[in-house]
Amino acid sequence: MTIALNFPLTPKSEIPHYSPQGNECALFESAWTRQLPVLLKGPTGCGKTRFVQHMAAKLGLPVSTVSCHDDLTAADLTGRYLLKGGETVWVDGPLTRAVRNGGICYLDEIVEARKDVAVVLHPLTDDRRILPLERTGEILEAQPAFMVVVSYNPGYQNLMKALKPSTRQRFVSIEFDFLPRDKEITTVAIESGLSEAKVAPLVDLARRLRILKGQDIEEGVSTRLLIYCATLIEAGMPVADAVRAAIVEPLTDEPDVKAALLEVAKAMFA
Amino acid sequence: MTIALNFPLTPKSEIPHYSPQGNECALFESAWTRQLPVLLKGPTGCGKTRFVQHMAAKLGLPVSTVSCHDDLTAADLTGRYLLKGGETVWVDGPLTRAVRNGGICYLDEIVEARKDVAVVLHPLTDDRRILPLERTGEILEAQPAFMVVVSYNPGYQNLMKALKPSTRQRFVSIEFDFLPRDKEITTVAIESGLSEAKVAPLVDLARRLRILKGQDIEEGVSTRLLIYCATLIEAGMPVADAVRAAIVEPLTDEPDVKAALLEVAKAMFA
Amino acid sequence: MTIALNFPLTPKSEIPHYSPQGNECALFESAWTRQLPVLLKGPTGCGKTRFVQHMAAKLGLPVSTVSCHDDLTAADLTGRYLLKGGETVWVDGPLTRAVRNGGICYLDEIVEARKDVAVVLHPLTDDRRILPLERTGEILEAQPAFMVVVSYNPGYQNLMKALKPSTRQRFVSIEFDFLPRDKEITTVAIESGLSEAKVAPLVDLARRLRILKGQDIEEGVSTRLLIYCATLIEAGMPVADAVRAAIVEPLTDEPDVKAALLEVAKAMFA
Amino acid sequence: MTIALNFPLTPKSEIPHYSPQGNECALFESAWTRQLPVLLKGPTGCGKTRFVQHMAAKLGLPVSTVSCHDDLTAADLTGRYLLKGGETVWVDGPLTRAVRNGGICYLDEIVEARKDVAVVLHPLTDDRRILPLERTGEILEAQPAFMVVVSYNPGYQNLMKALKPSTRQRFVSIEFDFLPRDKEITTVAIESGLSEAKVAPLVDLARRLRILKGQDIEEGVSTRLLIYCATLIEAGMPVADAVRAAIVEPLTDEPDVKAALLEVAKAMFA
Amino acid sequence: MTIALNFPLTPKSEIPHYSPQGNECALFESAWTRQLPVLLKGPTGCGKTRFVQHMAAKLGLPVSTVSCHDDLTAADLTGRYLLKGGETVWVDGPLTRAVRNGGICYLDEIVEARKDVAVVLHPLTDDRRILPLERTGEILEAQPAFMVVVSYNPGYQNLMKALKPSTRQRFVSIEFDFLPRDKEITTVAIESGLSEAKVAPLVDLARRLRILKGQDIEEGVSTRLLIYCATLIEAGMPVADAVRAAIVEPLTDEPDVKAALLEVAKAMFA
Amino acid sequence: MTIALNFPLTPKSEIPHYSPQGNECALFESAWTRQLPVLLKGPTGCGKTRFVQHMAAKLGLPVSTVSCHDDLTAADLTGRYLLKGGETVWVDGPLTRAVRNGGICYLDEIVEARKDVAVVLHPLTDDRRILPLERTGEILEAQPAFMVVVSYNPGYQNLMKALKPSTRQRFVSIEFDFLPRDKEITTVAIESGLSEAKVAPLVDLARRLRILKGQDIEEGVSTRLLIYCATLIEAGMPVADAVRAAIVEPLTDEPDVKAALLEVAKAMFA
Repeated sequence: MTIALNFPLTPKSEIPHYSPQGNECALFESAWTRQLPVLLKGPTGCGKTRFVQHMAAKLGLPVSTVSCHDDLTAADLTGRYLLKGGETVWVDGPLTRAVRNGGICYLDEIVEARKDVAVVLHPLTDDRRILPLERTGEILEAQPAFMVVVSYNPGYQNLMKALKPSTRQRFVSIEFDFLPRDKEITTVAIESGLSEAKVAPLVDLARRLRILKGQDIEEGVSTRLLIYCATLIEAGMPVADAVRAAIVEPLTDEPDVKAALLEVAKAMFA
Repeated sequence: MTIALNFPLTPKSEIPHYSPQGNECALFESAWTRQLPVLLKGPTGCGKTRFVQHMAAKLGLPVSTVSCHDDLTAADLTGRYLLKGGETVWVDGPLTRAVRNGGICYLDEIVEARKDVAVVLHPLTDDRRILPLERTGEILEAQPAFMVVVSYNPGYQNLMKALKPSTRQRFVSIEFDFLPRDKEITTVAIESGLSEAKVAPLVDLARRLRILKGQDIEEGVSTRLLIYCATLIEAGMPVADAVRAAIVEPLTDEPDVKAALLEVAKAMFA
Repeated sequence: MTIALNFPLTPKSEIPHYSPQGNECALFESAWTRQLPVLLKGPTGCGKTRFVQHMAAKLGLPVSTVSCHDDLTAADLTGRYLLKGGETVWVDGPLTRAVRNGGICYLDEIVEARKDVAVVLHPLTDDRRILPLERTGEILEAQPAFMVVVSYNPGYQNLMKALKPSTRQRFVSIEFDFLPRDKEITTVAIESGLSEAKVAPLVDLARRLRILKGQDIEEGVSTRLLIYCATLIEAGMPVADAVRAAIVEPLTDEPDVKAALLEVAKAMFA
Repeated sequence: MTIALNFPLTPKSEIPHYSPQGNECALFESAWTRQLPVLLKGPTGCGKTRFVQHMAAKLGLPVSTVSCHDDLTAADLTGRYLLKGGETVWVDGPLTRAVRNGGICYLDEIVEARKDVAVVLHPLTDDRRILPLERTGEILEAQPAFMVVVSYNPGYQNLMKALKPSTRQRFVSIEFDFLPRDKEITTVAIESGLSEAKVAPLVDLARRLRILKGQDIEEGVSTRLLIYCATLIEAGMPVADAVRAAIVEPLTDEPDVKAALLEVAKAMFA
Repeated sequence: MTIALNFPLTPKSEIPHYSPQGNECALFESAWTRQLPVLLKGPTGCGKTRFVQHMAAKLGLPVSTVSCHDDLTAADLTGRYLLKGGETVWVDGPLTRAVRNGGICYLDEIVEARKDVAVVLHPLTDDRRILPLERTGEILEAQPAFMVVVSYNPGYQNLMKALKPSTRQRFVSIEFDFLPRDKEITTVAIESGLSEAKVAPLVDLARRLRILKGQDIEEGVSTRLLIYCATLIEAGMPVADAVRAAIVEPLTDEPDVKAALLEVAKAMFA
Repeated sequence: MTIALNFPLTPKSEIPHYSPQGNECALFESAWTRQLPVLLKGPTGCGKTRFVQHMAAKLGLPVSTVSCHDDLTAADLTGRYLLKGGETVWVDGPLTRAVRNGGICYLDEIVEARKDVAVVLHPLTDDRRILPLERTGEILEAQPAFMVVVSYNPGYQNLMKALKPSTRQRFVSIEFDFLPRDKEITTVAIESGLSEAKVAPLVDLARRLRILKGQDIEEGVSTRLLIYCATLIEAGMPVADAVRAAIVEPLTDEPDVKAALLEVAKAMFA
């Protein structure tokens, strides 16, 4: 990798822990060296954001994360004019700052954003790598060290909010899933401080409940919830209370489903 | 609990009365010590807001309550630019103030807010605990003493307004229900000044009517309405008039249902 | 009643005429003395607004009436920043003025307002009695002499525009209906100047037509329309012309229904 | 009529021609003397606007006409703040000007306006006769010589755009229809300059086509179109060309319906 | 024609070519002399805009064309306040300029505009001929030489976007269709520079394809497309390529329909 | 070609590579010399944008590309007033700049834009070639060297977002498809640096998968994705990993479809 960087490298010692599932680190690095944009797909709480932070630190890149939502517009990314001292002054948005200075601009859950957000990425994600700022009349050429990463959760089958093919086909895509059993146990133990022996049945419970996704529950238990649960146990809460508060209640409001999930948990911890 | 606080503690003597239903105080305190965000679920008027005020006072934390609604946006929480003396000046919103200074930011009925509100909480409710302010270009790290608490009422089955799993799975969740009979009698008596003997049949009436929820009436009688009713009786209104004005009329507009509820009340006070 | 008032009392002699239907005056006064908010339910033109004016004058309270509509927002009630001399200056809305100075803030047909209006009332209608002004960062405690009164017409069965239980259960509720025959005759005679003998058949006609509500006509004849009709007769219009212009035409546009109503009227005045 | 006017009377000689259909002039004058608001109902082009101008001139009142539409809001009627010399200055809207100075404020096709427009009329159309200006904090009492007149066309059966009973029941209502044959002939002859003999078959044609309303054509031929047609004939156009251009083409785009209407016309002029 | 003009006449030599289909020139001129507004109906590209330019030049009138669309509002026509030097300054829109100075204001495809656009024309298209500017408080009387012309395409059967009868019945209406064969050949030859002999089969092809309108293709081939096609041929393109690029591809995206149209073309040029 | 250019020619050596599919270069050049606007139709990633860049460079024209989206309005193209030093100053948009200075204004995926965007092109795409700027009161005549090019993807069958015939019939239209096999192999090899021998099976895979369009996958594999895939292989990724990341994952999220596509790939590379 020989791209010149115009920003200080993050010291390697600060790289956040990340436990790879497959070839995603190599893929990301190849995409980075060849200036290809990347799309991360996967369920909530499986580690996509952490992966971006990990790779950014490893590659010595600053990362600017934008959580997308229904009201996020292109101007929130590119910038806007503000009144200062009676003058309108242009203020760059996070995408424009990354285009000018290099680094990763990470758009989390991009399908949630307004349609113009996907479109503003188009000229940045083909061989032009430019960002036209219509409001200022500028056409910015992206720094060599600029990279676009986006993510979304294909589990939500929302017809109104799919990525259009003309957008999707601009990204190298990496699919994520929950960690394999052993890696998930290790990760939860590290993050919560609870012993692996005590974490193991929590992970096994999560794996049983994930099978129910799409039937009784909308989404599987995330690794994040397992860490919450283990953290509460480590803080002294009874296991049953922690499982209810950090796993069952966040998954459902239906009394029947809730009772069934608690039954499964009780059986496993009996 | 060893978190350093940069704001004065509320004197313990001012802690609002709260009668616990189960382990919710211990759970909340564990979540607080481990910096986990909390979601409160439960019907209207069952004491969620009072619980937050109680715990905040007990933990010596200031609390900033935001009642969410259809038009509440992320900018209402994070802040916005205002014109002052010809300059645009940034003014922090309640969430940003809590992130900077510590304390609880309590978003009541979060599902009522616009979608960007849930998303603005995401980086504050994982291990990053940051609040990126795109408009100012700042990335704030939350004070150790900062805590997010949200609530919603799962009784409203509104498909358009559910919390997305990617949001739900960021919170330790506590379910609330109405108080058990004895505790509810005590609470209503304390708040209204009416004797427990006179409060008891009101609570019994409420408990009978709550069974009808989802059939003839949309929501059960809240403890708040019982306090209103007892207050009117204590102020000298006849019981029948107070029951009609503070229990029956607030529950329904349907003449048939109203007549049926009054019949139940009449039978109980006969 | 010992609440200190910080505004001059209205001289009792100016109290607008109001003819009570039942215990509504006592109920309202009890709610006032115990600082409970009040909800008035009832059909259009039955005297809800007049009742509020009457009680306000009787209790010596100023009243600020806001007619709610589809575009009314919380900011219209609480206040907003306006540009003055190059500065943005905060200007209180009618709710904020009442919270600061005391008096009744009356929101007429509250279900017509935008959703944030109901929510802005929540912290003012529980034991907190506060009004947080997010825009200015203030948290106002309501004057002891502050009272919220809202009204709506349950006759409109609009699913999109119902009061949520979490709002409804914050109010002592009083139901209104049209006046009983004798009182309505007296009221119409007083307001129009027409003799009671000539008013009586008009009231009888209205009572017959009110039975048709929900079948051929959307809403019953209001007392206000009877006053209009009597006023036109007193001004010299033939009875048939006045009945058509002030009763039949305001009720319906359907030629068949119109003919039927005129037939009923003709029979009664024959 | 003894109401003091604070504006100069229009000289009687300038009163626009109006040919009464029934008792509408007496009704309007009674409503005016008793300060009752008036609602005019009737099909397009039947003379409602002309009637208001006629009555206003006869009563010596200025009239301010507002054509309502989907985007008309209460602020367009009441006024708004404008920036002048760095200050925000309040500028009255047409309703506020009429409230302050007296005269008729005529809202044409009120159902087309946004919902807040109807509501802003409420306190002006009951015994209060006030206009609260929330934005300025003023409560204006209407001049004695202030009158509200509204109109709508019940022929459009648009469920989304009906007047609510709470609005309708605030107006004395007058129904309009097309002029009787002789009066319509006279009116068209006067306005177009064509002889009554040549106008008569045009009016007969219109009366035949009006029967088709609701079947093949959405609305009957207006008197205005007859005047257009007669005007073109008087200017030298062949009758067949004028009938097509001023009657048939404005009524429909359907080739079949158009052919049928031309057939009717041809038969009548044969 | 004796109307005084306050603007310089266009020299007659600059009148754009227009080949009349019927009596439309006489009709337009009659409407102009009698101050009647005109509505032009007809398919896309049949010459409506050219006709307006032709008549305007012939009558020595300036013409201001506004292409209507979904976001065009009344303020775009009448004018708005702009900030200049810290002052809000009123700037006339094209309709207001024409009302003040005379000339034709031509609203192309008026049904595409927002609803308030049609309504703003109402007082200008009856005998009042006034334009009330609510924002400035002015009521402008139209110049004698002011004329409103609107157009729409009845071929689009869009229920949401029909002209309301209350608007339609304010215009003398002229229907347009494609030119008869000989006139269309002449026009295309003149505009493209291609010989009439070579244009003739193109016009014949267009006439055959126009019959398919409403079946396989949404709209018939416009004269404009024929001119494009002839222009490409005149520039040296092979006939088949020009027909495909300027006639077939602009008509449809459906492969089956496209093949069928090319088949028709091939047969005719064989 | 004899059009005078008022901007410097791009040196011929900088013309981007483009491999013609048919007569599109000649067609474009004819349209340019005769000042006809051009519409490009075709699937995503087939080279439309590259073609415009190629032709612009070949003809020595600057090109201004606007990626259209749901929130793009006419003002984004024509310009708007901005506050500068207390004055509102007009700033030209990209379309206005091209109209004033000459060059190609290329609107990519025009059907995605708001409706007023298509309409603003109307007077520029007929014989008038003018751009009326209502806001400034200017009517700009386009430079001889001004050209409008638009594109869209007919593969999206979105009824709400079709080009209206009145817009379509203003453009000479060119259809694009994916390159023929040999040309696509050459192009992918040149752009990725991978040998033609290794690229060939990737192109064959793409051609097999494109047949599935409309059945299991929404859109065919673009040439861009093939270049991504070849680039990753050239960077050292295993072929299977590159195919999954750059072809399969960008095409679908459905596990079944994904498995089937991988099966096809496996068979071809076996």
